[in-house]
Amino acid sequence: MCGIVGYVGKQTAIPILVEGLKKLEYRGYDSAGVAVLDAQGISVSKSVGKLAALEKEIGENYSQSCIGIGHTRWATHGRPSQVNAHPHGDCGLDFAVVHNGIIENYLELKDQLIEKGHSFVSETDTEVLAHLVEDFYQGDLEAAVRQVLAIIRGSFAMVVLSRKEPGKLVAARKDSPMVVGLGTGEFFVASDITAILNHTRQVYILDDGEMVVIQETGVKITDFAGNPRVKEVMHVKWDAVAAEKGGYEHFMLKEIHEQPRALRDTMLGRLEEEKVVLQEVDLTSDELAQIHKVYIVACGTAWHAGLVGKTLIERWAHLPVEVDIASEFRYRSPLIDEHTLVVVVSQSGETADTLAALREAKNRGARVIAITNVVGSTVSREAHDVIFTWAGPEIAVASTKAYTTQLEGMVLLGLYLAQVKGTLPANKIGEIIQGLKNIPAQVQEILDQESSIRELAKSFVGVEDAFFLGRSLDWAVAMEGALKMKEISYIHAEAYAAGELKHGTLALVTEQTPVLALATQREVFDKTVSNIKEVKARDAKVFGMTYKGNTSLAKAVDQVIYIPETRDELAPILTVIPLQLLAYYVSVARGCDVDKPRNLAKSVTVE
Amino acid sequence: MCGIVGYVGKQTAIPILVEGLKKLEYRGYDSAGVAVLDAQGISVSKSVGKLAALEKEIGENYSQSCIGIGHTRWATHGRPSQVNAHPHGDCGLDFAVVHNGIIENYLELKDQLIEKGHSFVSETDTEVLAHLVEDFYQGDLEAAVRQVLAIIRGSFAMVVLSRKEPGKLVAARKDSPMVVGLGTGEFFVASDITAILNHTRQVYILDDGEMVVIQETGVKITDFAGNPRVKEVMHVKWDAVAAEKGGYEHFMLKEIHEQPRALRDTMLGRLEEEKVVLQEVDLTSDELAQIHKVYIVACGTAWHAGLVGKTLIERWAHLPVEVDIASEFRYRSPLIDEHTLVVVVSQSGETADTLAALREAKNRGARVIAITNVVGSTVSREAHDVIFTWAGPEIAVASTKAYTTQLEGMVLLGLYLAQVKGTLPANKIGEIIQGLKNIPAQVQEILDQESSIRELAKSFVGVEDAFFLGRSLDWAVAMEGALKMKEISYIHAEAYAAGELKHGTLALVTEQTPVLALATQREVFDKTVSNIKEVKARDAKVFGMTYKGNTSLAKAVDQVIYIPETRDELAPILTVIPLQLLAYYVSVARGCDVDKPRNLAKSVTVE
Repeated sequence: MCGIVGYVGKQTAIPILVEGLKKLEYRGYDSAGVAVLDAQGISVSKSVGKLAALEKEIGENYSQSCIGIGHTRWATHGRPSQVNAHPHGDCGLDFAVVHNGIIENYLELKDQLIEKGHSFVSETDTEVLAHLVEDFYQGDLEAAVRQVLAIIRGSFAMVVLSRKEPGKLVAARKDSPMVVGLGTGEFFVASDITAILNHTRQVYILDDGEMVVIQETGVKITDFAGNPRVKEVMHVKWDAVAAEKGGYEHFMLKEIHEQPRALRDTMLGRLEEEKVVLQEVDLTSDELAQIHKVYIVACGTAWHAGLVGKTLIERWAHLPVEVDIASEFRYRSPLIDEHTLVVVVSQSGETADTLAALREAKNRGARVIAITNVVGSTVSREAHDVIFTWAGPEIAVASTKAYTTQLEGMVLLGLYLAQVKGTLPANKIGEIIQGLKNIPAQVQEILDQESSIRELAKSFVGVEDAFFLGRSLDWAVAMEGALKMKEISYIHAEAYAAGELKHGTLALVTEQTPVLALATQREVFDKTVSNIKEVKARDAKVFGMTYKGNTSLAKAVDQVIYIPETRDELAPILTVIPLQLLAYYVSVARGCDVDKPRNLAKSVTVE
Repeated sequence: MCGIVGYVGKQTAIPILVEGLKKLEYRGYDSAGVAVLDAQGISVSKSVGKLAALEKEIGENYSQSCIGIGHTRWATHGRPSQVNAHPHGDCGLDFAVVHNGIIENYLELKDQLIEKGHSFVSETDTEVLAHLVEDFYQGDLEAAVRQVLAIIRGSFAMVVLSRKEPGKLVAARKDSPMVVGLGTGEFFVASDITAILNHTRQVYILDDGEMVVIQETGVKITDFAGNPRVKEVMHVKWDAVAAEKGGYEHFMLKEIHEQPRALRDTMLGRLEEEKVVLQEVDLTSDELAQIHKVYIVACGTAWHAGLVGKTLIERWAHLPVEVDIASEFRYRSPLIDEHTLVVVVSQSGETADTLAALREAKNRGARVIAITNVVGSTVSREAHDVIFTWAGPEIAVASTKAYTTQLEGMVLLGLYLAQVKGTLPANKIGEIIQGLKNIPAQVQEILDQESSIRELAKSFVGVEDAFFLGRSLDWAVAMEGALKMKEISYIHAEAYAAGELKHGTLALVTEQTPVLALATQREVFDKTVSNIKEVKARDAKVFGMTYKGNTSLAKAVDQVIYIPETRDELAPILTVIPLQLLAYYVSVARGCDVDKPRNLAKSVTVE
């Protein structure tokens, strides 16, 4: 989710690195840095904020070195600051490392390294990589990196520069993208093609578990064990704009497809066999015993995530939860005191109404946990505890990966509260954890069937109204599905509790009204089908969604969207995917501006 | 809200009375009866259910008497039963009385009468009237009735028949309609013109505070003190269908106009200077101290009333309240136990989902209070406590007077809980009570400006989408306003918390989208105006609603609807009136079937 660029060749590295990082700047990174190697050793320049600040830091008289690495950071471990910016070095700056992703076991590794005498300067997980390489280095950089790869867990794309072996970059990837650019007598490594597109269109796309050694003389690709890999060169046809979007037509579609990765990252380091670990949350069982009520406060899509959270927390932790729209919460004098836990949810961590609610809650003595995507955001700094979603920067105004990772955050929080309170046995927690671990692959499975949703979108392109129905958690997801469609396709979609439609709004349903009915929640499946029949009786075209293997829904609706089987509590993370795709393809077909819908703004700004 | 018919003439009374009552049967009354006077004295026939049951009860060989009174009942005091059906008699059946409305001080009067030796057979308020007439009678029926009128409080239209003075009916009205029909050598008295339209079209419309003595020889109208009144004869031009609707074009419009009466009736006997009296609710302060949480559970319009109730109860009684849609509540395993108070709201008292929720709550040990419009309904029988709304039968599918009286029920309940818990000082309760007492006249004031809403409706007739905005209680009313418009005009209206619109749905707002923004709640007025400006910036046509005397809203919107000033907590009962009228006139202009919108059914059935 951060940006990486590396260069080996005959030109001066620094302008190439900075120019590459600038291409990624639109994502709103929080800090950046470069490291180059020359006769004086490795020199590192870092700065918080935009690239302009880094350029200022570098100044006019920079090293003329022809090898270097650069990085723009989207904070995960450690707030945005100069010291936390990449590249990171080891004790003697013999090595410099840039890294995307999350090292799951970094705390444990860090402790071991400190015991051995290493001293750390940053709060990042990345810094352990530099010290590990230092620790393992015995005259062979490639071998040292292999040893590091063998003991780290998590997701990463990393590049190592060393003054012990000048003229060489060693890079590796797992669950985080990386490409190698092939120039004439010069080579590039980057997290995004955008960063190197001005220099070459010939690239190797690294696969998971691949490692590369880049020198002026050539590129060697192996697996982590050192076995050579034969790769095909790919010729990139994207222009710069397409490259920013990773080849997708819109940021929204790119971000929809990033969800397996975002979901995987967000669970990294947080799931043991039968236990959830939330480092940034520290609620003792004594403290939790004093909590009698939970409020979840948020706006828009984050509020929809809260509606799912309510059910999970009530069901698992037996704590009563009330979900409030932030702009309403603040002014209605909610009954809040020191026995209240307030959970605020905000992608940007800067949403004004949510922030105001957080402050109001703190003033009244509540304990506040934040779920947010931006490390160092105001919400993350002011809350007592934080669960970060590691979705990475979200550019499209309509939120997708932020929502699903917020849902995941709710699952983690619900399990954590149940664990501390002792309301769920360990084996039950273990079952849910297992289900959660399967989710990223199941999301991918749905994404792989994208074309069927694209087809289904045709039924919505010409309409001006649509209804999304569901009971229980399906209702909460229906709201999010309807909001997506409103936001980007300007169709007046509205979600209804399936059982409530007959109390008025059914009057709007005609054969011109497409209805999308979610029917995953097993306990209310039959009731939901009854409600679907009420709608079918009005000649509406009804699309259903349920688990693979369910044969009865197909009898009640015109067409069924199947999702992989999971626990009902986890279904929202799956059911929303087809709804995101549906909204997307309808918007495209209607010729709307998908990424920047009219009247709306993304709360997270570049700075 | 019940139906009355009386006859004096040369024809046999019973067929005329039964036929008259049948004309009122569409309203779904629960019981009926007639009383006639002949040589054998007064004979009374009563039956529960439809008129056919009464006809069966009367049989073939009925009295040929030419004077009598009849009544169909919509239960208020006392459940529907043969013994509670009218007419009611005194101890010796010297007098028989039929009565519409509510005798507010009947319990006190009943106690006095019992002390004097009168024995009562029914649970009704009406029976005291018969015994009072008996008590006062000293050879002059008219004088006795005058004495009764001087001591009773409440609303009434009543007719007295006596064997002491054969050939004479004495009737009187206050806050309950009554007409006198003029035939040739025969006279009628009725609560509704419908009941006598087959016999005459010449009527006197009695005014409040008028009394009438009807004999075969003629009609004498006076005030309660006995001063003669000169009345003009009115020639009724309505056909039978128009007459059913009281001359209004639709039941919905009739019911909108009945709200001042319905609201007045619903507070009758329940408001002292600084105290609320709820006879059907018996929560001791010890019991209430055990209640930690309140759920309000309902569907559709009643759910919207619950949303208002939440704010009132939390604000006044400091009890946390959660409002649930009944179809969702039941299946989501809410955390309910004996420390929970569940308030169910249902006009008909038969709503399936609400009833199921009530039973679920009772099973889990909760205390259940019902707010319902139908005495004897399943909900009213199964709840531990009941607050009846005395709106009378509601025929139109789109609820109007049931909603406003439910809001009133919420005010009464909120004050009651605060009173028992001691969370509001008596003088504050007194202030709110005074505000509530002003509401019926203020509703009338809004109804009197109906033409301006009719004019405003033109801006909505041609659109397919509309938004209703508000914060806090204004938001709750916005939901009801949007639902009315959906139900009867098939415009896709949607309500939004004013501060939430920018988190997505604002994308739908264009210059073609009319927006109605409620801005009565003083604490959030400025914030609401800010949100209105966001909408105005998208060129939407915005109509605002606020209190008379507010001059700033007019600067932010295209047109303002003003309502009389009241306390913010009571504003919903006023703000919804223009929204009801708006939905009505838009529906009429669009040629929709106002009273029977497509796809919908009234939950309350005739039986």
